Amino acid sequence: MQHVITVLVENRAGVLARVAGLFSGRGFNIDSLTVGPTADKTLSRMTVVATGDDQTIEQIVKQLNKLIDVVKVKDLSVEPHIERELVLLNVTCTPKTRGEIVELVSIFDGRILDVFAKGMIIEVAGDRRRMADFIELLQPYGIRETIRTGAIAIARKM
Amino acid sequence: MQHVITVLVENRAGVLARVAGLFSGRGFNIDSLTVGPTADKTLSRMTVVATGDDQTIEQIVKQLNKLIDVVKVKDLSVEPHIERELVLLNVTCTPKTRGEIVELVSIFDGRILDVFAKGMIIEVAGDRRRMADFIELLQPYGIRETIRTGAIAIARKM
Repeated sequence: MQHVITVLVENRAGVLARVAGLFSGRGFNIDSLTVGPTADKTLSRMTVVATGDDQTIEQIVKQLNKLIDVVKVKDLSVEPHIERELVLLNVTCTPKTRGEIVELVSIFDGRILDVFAKGMIIEVAGDRRRMADFIELLQPYGIRETIRTGAIAIARKM
Repeated sequence: MQHVITVLVENRAGVLARVAGLFSGRGFNIDSLTVGPTADKTLSRMTVVATGDDQTIEQIVKQLNKLIDVVKVKDLSVEPHIERELVLLNVTCTPKTRGEIVELVSIFDGRILDVFAKGMIIEVAGDRRRMADFIELLQPYGIRETIRTGAIAIARKM
């Protein structure tokens, strides 16, 4: 099962390496990971998406809680939450295919950030399944580059 | 100066810890970092935003290039590029303030993902400066939670 784990950490050099090391030490591959700032400048928030059996994830969460720089760990997969990801794409287009691509971008509620003679740069946000669908639909036109943030998640309850 | 470095890496356990360790080994704090999948399942792309003098960053880029799991390193700060970040916010609202918040979300081209009696969950994407402006404007209403992906970047040229 895929788990979404958020980890609130002290914003110190070396924390990321320690947390990442904890996953890899158990031979666990991380599907995606983001670390970003929080309202408190001394803290950062990590969002880790990792696939694995529930028991191993549970052990990792326990070990994360023991790390001195870790303030709070939460497995969001077990409660109502919203998951979103941002994707930037450089897609090939011709004057003929441009309209078709613009239509897809509009259906997926995306944005065109830049247009040039033979392509454009598109931004789209959504959950992983939706992002996979969008990328698949654009594939036939030729995707030069795909840059993804990996998922972040927020609890739905208050 | 703030640098945006993209690193294409082999999708193996331990790579993230090694790359993060390289930064922290030089006492370099990472402002944000994302690791996401690419079209090629054997590769992941990391986007690292780090502040520091150009010389140290140059050394880190050189050392990254030497890591066996690193396929390609690029400092996007030195060429035309687009930077974007995704932010999810849980903001307090009352029936009276709801309209004001909805207006701000619309100005910043954001989306309301969820609404409940005393708050809502907002999604917004943009560059760091714009995101900082948006968060500052919402602060007076009461922000319960802020989740950010950290910046990703894509080259503007073809």
